[in-house]
Amino acid sequence: MTVDLASFTVKTPQREIFVDITSKVSNIVSRGSISEGVCRVFVPHTTAAVTINENADPDVRLDIINILREIAPQAGKVQLRHGEGNADAHLKSSIVGCCQEILIHEKSLLLGTWQGIYFCEFDGPRTRQVHVQLHGE
Amino acid sequence: MTVDLASFTVKTPQREIFVDITSKVSNIVSRGSISEGVCRVFVPHTTAAVTINENADPDVRLDIINILREIAPQAGKVQLRHGEGNADAHLKSSIVGCCQEILIHEKSLLLGTWQGIYFCEFDGPRTRQVHVQLHGE
Amino acid sequence: MTVDLASFTVKTPQREIFVDITSKVSNIVSRGSISEGVCRVFVPHTTAAVTINENADPDVRLDIINILREIAPQAGKVQLRHGEGNADAHLKSSIVGCCQEILIHEKSLLLGTWQGIYFCEFDGPRTRQVHVQLHGE
Repeated sequence: MTVDLASFTVKTPQREIFVDITSKVSNIVSRGSISEGVCRVFVPHTTAAVTINENADPDVRLDIINILREIAPQAGKVQLRHGEGNADAHLKSSIVGCCQEILIHEKSLLLGTWQGIYFCEFDGPRTRQVHVQLHGE
Repeated sequence: MTVDLASFTVKTPQREIFVDITSKVSNIVSRGSISEGVCRVFVPHTTAAVTINENADPDVRLDIINILREIAPQAGKVQLRHGEGNADAHLKSSIVGCCQEILIHEKSLLLGTWQGIYFCEFDGPRTRQVHVQLHGE
Repeated sequence: MTVDLASFTVKTPQREIFVDITSKVSNIVSRGSISEGVCRVFVPHTTAAVTINENADPDVRLDIINILREIAPQAGKVQLRHGEGNADAHLKSSIVGCCQEILIHEKSLLLGTWQGIYFCEFDGPRTRQVHVQLHGE
């Protein structure tokens, strides 16, 4: 049994964007020593998240960002108390989630055909960190 | 330490439905070799998800589907760009999530009394896959 | 490889509240035997959840609760079928999630500077259980 940890940074150019990190994560798995187990992608931020979604049409990511903006507008009907004007980003972080687990099988990520891994920025532009932990045998 | 992988298919009869997969997952744990560890249920699709929720009153699942439909209508106020008319299903997949982890203790799923495991279809009817990975000792 | 399981209770004083459980979880990691691996925080309830979010300004948690209430009001526009009047709480449990994974590195939780762990009550006041499983080496 082995546990390996790697980290990388993501620079986000605007307030809300989904950045494709599939190949970065996949390269860590290829260079690692785990054949069967799990790959955890953990975002140590509270106004960002990580998700798995469609890797083909980039419009899907834009639609998801727009629906989330409709669900939780930066300046919405709800009277917000937090002074930084980014309570919507904190909410999005909690409902999308800051950690994703992807199964590792035969030393590869067991993603579906249309699945990619996306770093979700909700309060950029910023420089962000991503931790990737491999756990298995 | 062992990692075991199994898969099964779920046929969904309509666009939006939660299918109870608790006994299928539980049987994989019973037949497996892990006494203490975790059971990962991973859905390799981008318009479906997996969740843990009430196993008693089936109306709870219908209410959750209906509230999600209110939150992200198939044809809503947001101008959608993705041409397939299922951007709402992609959003639901990202906020419910495509992976659930259930603790294994004494060779059983450590679920609460009222918890069941549900495959969440948001763009059916389709034939879907579910991966179940057991990881522990 | 070791798997350790601990549990504790949380008493929630009102219908909706986020209770900081970071130090309880962190103490379990300190007293445990895992240096590299993962800490799973699992809530065995269907009207509660667990999330990771801002640990500094408590207004952030109130804002998140209020935005969730706006997204899924207890008595909203959607005609609800479940008779207990808490379908909104079930929905919130599914979109926030009943399990969080936090990486363990050098025998500590690898949380970001601003990240804390919160038990999310959506249908209190109640006495709730939290399971904490450590898995690694």
